[in-house]
Amino acid sequence: MTSNPAKRLVVVGAGPGGYEAALTGATAGLAVTLVERGKLGGTCLNWGCIPTKHLLATTLAVEALAAQAKQKLASGTVTPDLAAIQAKKKKLIAATHSAMAATLQKAGVRHVTANLTGVAPGLAQVAGGGETEDLPFDALILALGSRAASFPGVKPDGQAVLGVAPVLDFTEAPESLVIVGAGAIGLEIAAVYHRLGTKVTLVDAAPRLAPAEDPDVAKVVAQVMRRQGIDARPGVTVESLVTEDGRAKLTLAGGETILADKALVAIGRFAATVVPGLADCGVAFADPSPNRSWIKTGDTLEAAPGIYAVGDCNGRVLLAHAASSQGVYAARHAAGMETGPYAPGPIPGCYYGSPEIMRVGAIAAPGDLVSEAAFVANPIAQAHADTPGFARVAWKNDKVTGITAVGHGASTMATLATVIVSQAWTRNQAEELIFPHPGLDETLKAALLGEKKVKA
Amino acid sequence: MTSNPAKRLVVVGAGPGGYEAALTGATAGLAVTLVERGKLGGTCLNWGCIPTKHLLATTLAVEALAAQAKQKLASGTVTPDLAAIQAKKKKLIAATHSAMAATLQKAGVRHVTANLTGVAPGLAQVAGGGETEDLPFDALILALGSRAASFPGVKPDGQAVLGVAPVLDFTEAPESLVIVGAGAIGLEIAAVYHRLGTKVTLVDAAPRLAPAEDPDVAKVVAQVMRRQGIDARPGVTVESLVTEDGRAKLTLAGGETILADKALVAIGRFAATVVPGLADCGVAFADPSPNRSWIKTGDTLEAAPGIYAVGDCNGRVLLAHAASSQGVYAARHAAGMETGPYAPGPIPGCYYGSPEIMRVGAIAAPGDLVSEAAFVANPIAQAHADTPGFARVAWKNDKVTGITAVGHGASTMATLATVIVSQAWTRNQAEELIFPHPGLDETLKAALLGEKKVKA
Repeated sequence: MTSNPAKRLVVVGAGPGGYEAALTGATAGLAVTLVERGKLGGTCLNWGCIPTKHLLATTLAVEALAAQAKQKLASGTVTPDLAAIQAKKKKLIAATHSAMAATLQKAGVRHVTANLTGVAPGLAQVAGGGETEDLPFDALILALGSRAASFPGVKPDGQAVLGVAPVLDFTEAPESLVIVGAGAIGLEIAAVYHRLGTKVTLVDAAPRLAPAEDPDVAKVVAQVMRRQGIDARPGVTVESLVTEDGRAKLTLAGGETILADKALVAIGRFAATVVPGLADCGVAFADPSPNRSWIKTGDTLEAAPGIYAVGDCNGRVLLAHAASSQGVYAARHAAGMETGPYAPGPIPGCYYGSPEIMRVGAIAAPGDLVSEAAFVANPIAQAHADTPGFARVAWKNDKVTGITAVGHGASTMATLATVIVSQAWTRNQAEELIFPHPGLDETLKAALLGEKKVKA
Repeated sequence: MTSNPAKRLVVVGAGPGGYEAALTGATAGLAVTLVERGKLGGTCLNWGCIPTKHLLATTLAVEALAAQAKQKLASGTVTPDLAAIQAKKKKLIAATHSAMAATLQKAGVRHVTANLTGVAPGLAQVAGGGETEDLPFDALILALGSRAASFPGVKPDGQAVLGVAPVLDFTEAPESLVIVGAGAIGLEIAAVYHRLGTKVTLVDAAPRLAPAEDPDVAKVVAQVMRRQGIDARPGVTVESLVTEDGRAKLTLAGGETILADKALVAIGRFAATVVPGLADCGVAFADPSPNRSWIKTGDTLEAAPGIYAVGDCNGRVLLAHAASSQGVYAARHAAGMETGPYAPGPIPGCYYGSPEIMRVGAIAAPGDLVSEAAFVANPIAQAHADTPGFARVAWKNDKVTGITAVGHGASTMATLATVIVSQAWTRNQAEELIFPHPGLDETLKAALLGEKKVKA
């Protein structure tokens, strides 16, 4: 690409990947058209990271008080006004939409509200507002995102059984909520509505909560949820989940039924719908099933020459910051500013519920060398009356390969942990750094300096 | 020292510097005696970092609710029980004392509760419990700490005018509190008692709040305090501060008087009292006045051959983690395990009040290149309804030389900032690191990637 950089860049999808790709392309001097059928910001801004963090932050005082009250250090009540919280959320998100639109305009990106209806070599066909348009491109960046997964027996019906979007928009907390799926979304929504007084039941077919994380993380999550009174049940099979008489009825294998005012299906993500013509352009998919049709990409994030796929739609890492990083690279590659393969550093992942979880790099496997420290000795965690959890470091050849933490404020360590993993620190590097005292990060330091042992 | 490493190490003072020195010395194989006249943990554990953080954390729900209530997103009341909070604080600190004592014992450190009454070459004289003892040493590490500063007109009197220790131990919040001194202690205590319903007045002779920090930090602190209703007045001269009819009476130059139930004097630190015999051993002091008699140390933290001074008492950096770092180095040097000069990386400093402040490295001076970002655009700060403040990066030769932040959760960035300053990052390094989204650290990233401009 370097000898003949792209001039016309079409980006499809204005989530974190597409938005950054469009801006980066424009900065690099390309003529950029950004096609988005819905709102700017994608899942992250509209139905994901941002609204969940808003609901978690605005309800945090409930939990802070509960932790102190449990130790008889404070009394009182905190009553969040969910309708007002939602109104402010809408306002904040709308302000972000405006800021993003202004930034795109200032950068000279043409923003088209339309659907991608087809792709032919060098041509993207879009339709919106009753009109169609052919957008010729030298490079195309697909940032199509993903969609909420569902299965025949476990599928939002728009009545009492819902996907994450409507649950994030409740203006009144349901009296009871069943959540199917104990990944990041399920755990965060459980924390929010528990704080709002909802009786929460959380089920997952996986044998433990937060099934993508270290098994010992699940133990802490289970312990904290038990103390909070959340009924969390990993390892159960859902027979069916239906609306009956206006309420959600969950039937487990074995016959037990659980009734709740509402149910949330949060069992992962499916690939975005296949776009007509992509295959003819040479684009391949991970799986012929539409649900698993993640777009295959090579070292340069190209799915076919000049056609890139970034973010969720390539199925690599379904995280906003991973998408942004890929979007920047793809636009730079299209502009001839990158020639080597896409080689991001480690990508942190956080769960912002209660307890918080973060991980960067490898999960230690049995037999791996690990060192660790518990939050129970951390004065900040002690002061917050929130001491369950630990930080754990995975080592290989005396270098850090991964860091996991679960507990009070664990997400605040994620960037630091990303630096440490990306630089593959030795114990000595951790020893030489002066950590501020007192701080949560000191538990990470204690873990880095702890005795290495073989993980059972 | 390498050819003839010390065998008998005497450490005086069991604060963060002395405690770490003793443990490090024992690990290095020295015969260590740790002399402490009072409690293990020094100012940090007993009257400083730890109790302030306990009071801040246990009262945080008040502020979290207030921030939400101001935006009409929540209602309610949070009533901390200060007596219960203090009882738990005592319990936590006592548990830490026990843990420290057990760690010392396990390491083989002899712990002597006594005063250092004199030093002669190779001999420390101590007295405690009615007995005296001569402790011969090959190396002596003085970790004597510091004491609260006072001046003739502004001096705790044990009645209504108090030092920080009794103010940290109040079991009932005073109706009104005057604080003289707007440094870290004054600002943190102001936050605590404001949350507990006390009417707080804060004065400082310096022209701005947090006078050791970037002047723009002071503007944010002043803005936040004004909104909270704290009467903060920098640039005023205290004429006198006395107890009158059981209450504190502050008289300002110009004649204005302010009455309050209690007053706190928090105007800095003085050197610890001079120890007889030190000068004869060749130890020199920064200033002949006892208040300014910081122990002079050379490149190896030695004040005289084989006599080290670490932590506050050498007047370098009055922070717990700085003391710990120096204590470790001094013990290792005494054991022949370090031969080069003491060369710590950058030392972070945090203020944990409201707003939080953190700084690592240089404060940008007018004419320096800086880049910055405001918290107002950060989704986490937005969600917490706590958006004042910024992160600012100082640059020299395209490398980071300092980072300052003030605002919601600024202290949580301190370790990351320490890594970035210690490694003197370029803009490119910041660009390549994948920051987790959404996170407060993204404001630091935005500052690192921001346009560089000359500071006015």
